[in-house]
Amino acid sequence: MLRTHTCGELRLSDINKQVTLSGWVQKSRDLGGMTFIDLRDRYGITQLAFNEDVDKDMNAQARSVSREFVIQVTGTVIERESKNKNNPTGEIEILVKEFKILNESVTPPFTIEDNTDGGDELRMKYRYLDLRRNEVRKNLELRHRMAIETRNYLDQLNFLEVETPVLIKSTPEGARDFVVPSRMNEGQFYALPQSPQTFKQLLMVGGFDRYYQIVKCFRDEDLRADRQPEFTQIDCEMSFVEQKDILDTFEGLVRHLFKAVKNIDMPNVPHMTYADAMKFYGNDKPDTRFEMKFVEMNKVVAGKNFKVFDEAELVVAICAKSAAEYTRKQLDELTEWVKRPQIGATGLVYARHNADGTIKSSVDKFYTEEDLKAWSVACGSQPGDLILVLAGSEEKTRKAMSELRLEMGTRLGLRDKTTFSALWVIDFPLLEWNDGDPNLLASLAGRWHAKHHPFTSPNPADFELLKTNPGAVRANAYDLVINGVEVGGGSIRIHNKELQAQMFDLLGFTKEEAQKQFGFLMNAFEFGAPPHGGLAFGFDRLCSLFGGSDSIRDFIAFPKNNSGRDVMIDSPSEISDEQLKELNILSTVEAK
Amino acid sequence: MLRTHTCGELRLSDINKQVTLSGWVQKSRDLGGMTFIDLRDRYGITQLAFNEDVDKDMNAQARSVSREFVIQVTGTVIERESKNKNNPTGEIEILVKEFKILNESVTPPFTIEDNTDGGDELRMKYRYLDLRRNEVRKNLELRHRMAIETRNYLDQLNFLEVETPVLIKSTPEGARDFVVPSRMNEGQFYALPQSPQTFKQLLMVGGFDRYYQIVKCFRDEDLRADRQPEFTQIDCEMSFVEQKDILDTFEGLVRHLFKAVKNIDMPNVPHMTYADAMKFYGNDKPDTRFEMKFVEMNKVVAGKNFKVFDEAELVVAICAKSAAEYTRKQLDELTEWVKRPQIGATGLVYARHNADGTIKSSVDKFYTEEDLKAWSVACGSQPGDLILVLAGSEEKTRKAMSELRLEMGTRLGLRDKTTFSALWVIDFPLLEWNDGDPNLLASLAGRWHAKHHPFTSPNPADFELLKTNPGAVRANAYDLVINGVEVGGGSIRIHNKELQAQMFDLLGFTKEEAQKQFGFLMNAFEFGAPPHGGLAFGFDRLCSLFGGSDSIRDFIAFPKNNSGRDVMIDSPSEISDEQLKELNILSTVEAK
Repeated sequence: MLRTHTCGELRLSDINKQVTLSGWVQKSRDLGGMTFIDLRDRYGITQLAFNEDVDKDMNAQARSVSREFVIQVTGTVIERESKNKNNPTGEIEILVKEFKILNESVTPPFTIEDNTDGGDELRMKYRYLDLRRNEVRKNLELRHRMAIETRNYLDQLNFLEVETPVLIKSTPEGARDFVVPSRMNEGQFYALPQSPQTFKQLLMVGGFDRYYQIVKCFRDEDLRADRQPEFTQIDCEMSFVEQKDILDTFEGLVRHLFKAVKNIDMPNVPHMTYADAMKFYGNDKPDTRFEMKFVEMNKVVAGKNFKVFDEAELVVAICAKSAAEYTRKQLDELTEWVKRPQIGATGLVYARHNADGTIKSSVDKFYTEEDLKAWSVACGSQPGDLILVLAGSEEKTRKAMSELRLEMGTRLGLRDKTTFSALWVIDFPLLEWNDGDPNLLASLAGRWHAKHHPFTSPNPADFELLKTNPGAVRANAYDLVINGVEVGGGSIRIHNKELQAQMFDLLGFTKEEAQKQFGFLMNAFEFGAPPHGGLAFGFDRLCSLFGGSDSIRDFIAFPKNNSGRDVMIDSPSEISDEQLKELNILSTVEAK
Repeated sequence: MLRTHTCGELRLSDINKQVTLSGWVQKSRDLGGMTFIDLRDRYGITQLAFNEDVDKDMNAQARSVSREFVIQVTGTVIERESKNKNNPTGEIEILVKEFKILNESVTPPFTIEDNTDGGDELRMKYRYLDLRRNEVRKNLELRHRMAIETRNYLDQLNFLEVETPVLIKSTPEGARDFVVPSRMNEGQFYALPQSPQTFKQLLMVGGFDRYYQIVKCFRDEDLRADRQPEFTQIDCEMSFVEQKDILDTFEGLVRHLFKAVKNIDMPNVPHMTYADAMKFYGNDKPDTRFEMKFVEMNKVVAGKNFKVFDEAELVVAICAKSAAEYTRKQLDELTEWVKRPQIGATGLVYARHNADGTIKSSVDKFYTEEDLKAWSVACGSQPGDLILVLAGSEEKTRKAMSELRLEMGTRLGLRDKTTFSALWVIDFPLLEWNDGDPNLLASLAGRWHAKHHPFTSPNPADFELLKTNPGAVRANAYDLVINGVEVGGGSIRIHNKELQAQMFDLLGFTKEEAQKQFGFLMNAFEFGAPPHGGLAFGFDRLCSLFGGSDSIRDFIAFPKNNSGRDVMIDSPSEISDEQLKELNILSTVEAK
């Protein structure tokens, strides 16, 4: 080893030891006869001292090194005169006797500090330098710890980690596949898995009983800020279970992670139906760190000649606690905020429940104080609270109110990143109508689409509706939501061949298409498939949630940008004609 | 849960418990008034008893189920009259009170037994049924255990598991890449990684210090029996290390795995140079479970007018202990064996060192008994041993003798799969001349090729030879060989930009090509790259070695066949014109 110790481990108890350290120059200070260098590695920072009286040449050498040079020193651990209590090694320093430059560094394009001066793009291009920063490294250390703890928890419950293949078959009914031309099978393509869904089900058919895998998955989507073309799942499946067993098992996993990684005792996770989540939060992944539930006001506000309310499909209110003191300016600004196209409301009505008990609204022309008392009763407002009301078409208004609720939660400081509130959302709809989802192939528009995936079991109570009213069928599916983030989801699967065939039929597959794409699974169901179900956590997202960040990118060592590019390695890139020819494909894009 | 216990856990101490079990019907026996079913799950087999006197209908139902039906039963644990000591649950059975068929099964295409009647191809097509067999499941349980133990060992040594990207950039200087057309970056392609080599080096540049990953890698090779287009590596890298540190660390990992998984105390692993491995075993991955080293005989056999020997570039012998009693017929057969095209020898000379001390050879016409005594001394033969000699051109003869040595090892029972002998092979050549390797692009023929990869550091003692005699330069590279199988390999890397540029130049890259393909790495080396090195284990192979199998396929849940096809899901397959169009590619193969 080019060191005897790391830069994070020496203490007062090591005084007088001869040690060798290697690392990067964080900074150096030249005090004439003495030069001090802060030497950094993954484990910490140790101060090096060079004394001109001891070795003049070496002191001169030490003065010559710049930030990010890689050096190796040997010397004696001594007690520091001016101790730094903020650094675990801050009570000692190394009096250097031997000194070697292991590698030089040109000036980095941004400072390697907690508060760097580098912008996003620059830091992505030089990701290997960004990785030297504490914050980035800590995120990836957290990720490592989460993975280890996940595996150990599941291992103890007899889950087997099984690697499923990455080169599989294209099944374009879901999101778009990434495909891989096969050289040995001319004219044919592999696809990269969007999830190991069918393989984990086959493992259940194969009697594996309990499976998991921390696994890369791939989706060729038009990327949003917080999506990546390749992402990681904690993918799980169990046999001989019902919904409750899965929820209990994986609630246990999440509770274990909170305890092991963050020393947080998480309470039991409540269950909420999809219908209730939409009704009370306008959202299938409500942030339950705070209440501020929706109150439907149509009846309360009706008949006062206020057309906006009277003609609205939905009038919905929230009660923002202790916000009655919002100024007119703040309320005007909030009104502008809800009218932004991303939110889409046409206006905002408010009623201040003042500290003195009076209630004043922005629509006093139509509503007497007596009327407003009825509002207050409906919303449960107390003196000091602010009632906010939106009205309009049902779906749009719920969505806008959901955004407003989250915004008010943020403004009122109710969304602390170190507080965690988890929720199981259950009873999702089985199907949704595809009006032309841009993330699906155009040929799939105008059909039912599986909200979860085509292997999700309908709720047995709704079997009859499959034929008469498919849109009303509930799925035996569930999502785990923490702080308004969907961190995982899954379902009880279909294990019956006929029901699976019926499902494919409903999704607009011909018998031939279903057989061609999923024949292997339907065949497998002929040989004694056990009842089974499972779920998958978005591992990147789970890590970012634990790390208190909104961006999964911060928790991925080498993420891609919004165009799916790795700007560091400059990928994707053109490939040679020789490669294309061997793969039996032509590019239809003119070479630049 | 659809069970209270698994089929492997009930014992005499559970007598009288009411239990519910679920599983597959392994077999059933109808004894008139009683029916017995062996119920199987991943954890074991439990006998179910149905008594006609207790419930006639249920007994009839039980008689109706066939092999591989999935059933659920509830009943009482009772002591068995005729105990089965070979089964951990063999002292009890379940007297069934409730019975439910969870799923039916048609007759499987092969029997789900340890000794199945299913051929390879059939079992691959119905892999989900093959997975139900003990042997296949145990292999994958072993793999799971190996992965867990690997992670825990490395975690304790401060290694961080970091996920590197799967969608990267094509660098066609190695084996062929699988590529992935990018829809969002028209005309451009990602490539799947042949290994995370450059990324792990960037992690070292990024100060991660110790990295590992159990990771899928991809190589578009013409497949041999024991290769897969996607395979798994334990990929590792360390900073501030020299060769010895890496060998010690990963010898420790292998020793830990042997202890934890197989309860074997592995002795220290000896080191052998590549040159010695070739000299003594004709092979860079010698099987050291047995000696039988090569003895070069040119001088010993010279000058006796035996032209075959006198004119041979190499005359080489091995001494097969206690094989003097091989019959003439056996020796003739062995002679035919070495003359097969795969071995390529032109003939075989032997000398029996008989029990009575006399020595008789197949070339007595040329060699007196006195001459043969010199053979015996050279080879260290004892009475009862058999000396086998091959002659011809150096390279071909070494290769043939290596095969013969392994064959004799097998025939003499020296290659027991439960015995393990490990070896570090070091000082590999840095380069090899590419005469037209079919696994490389044709355009790379007639150039030097990196034996390990282009990032491997030359042995500093040989720096000068880089310019004068590149073929003689030794690499700072090493392989771990166990029982003649290369289970891992790695190197100390280049961390200096100029040396890396020199290496690319040597490999025939223009400056522009090197910059285009690996500019990101060379740039990174400008910013203080630490000295670093690492290695990767072939995880599939390591598992198969631990499991005592010659085939990695047995240790992969869903392997591909020799044409790179998954015959179960029937992949690769054609994709739709809509997909091709979106990806801006055309297939040059006519649709069938």
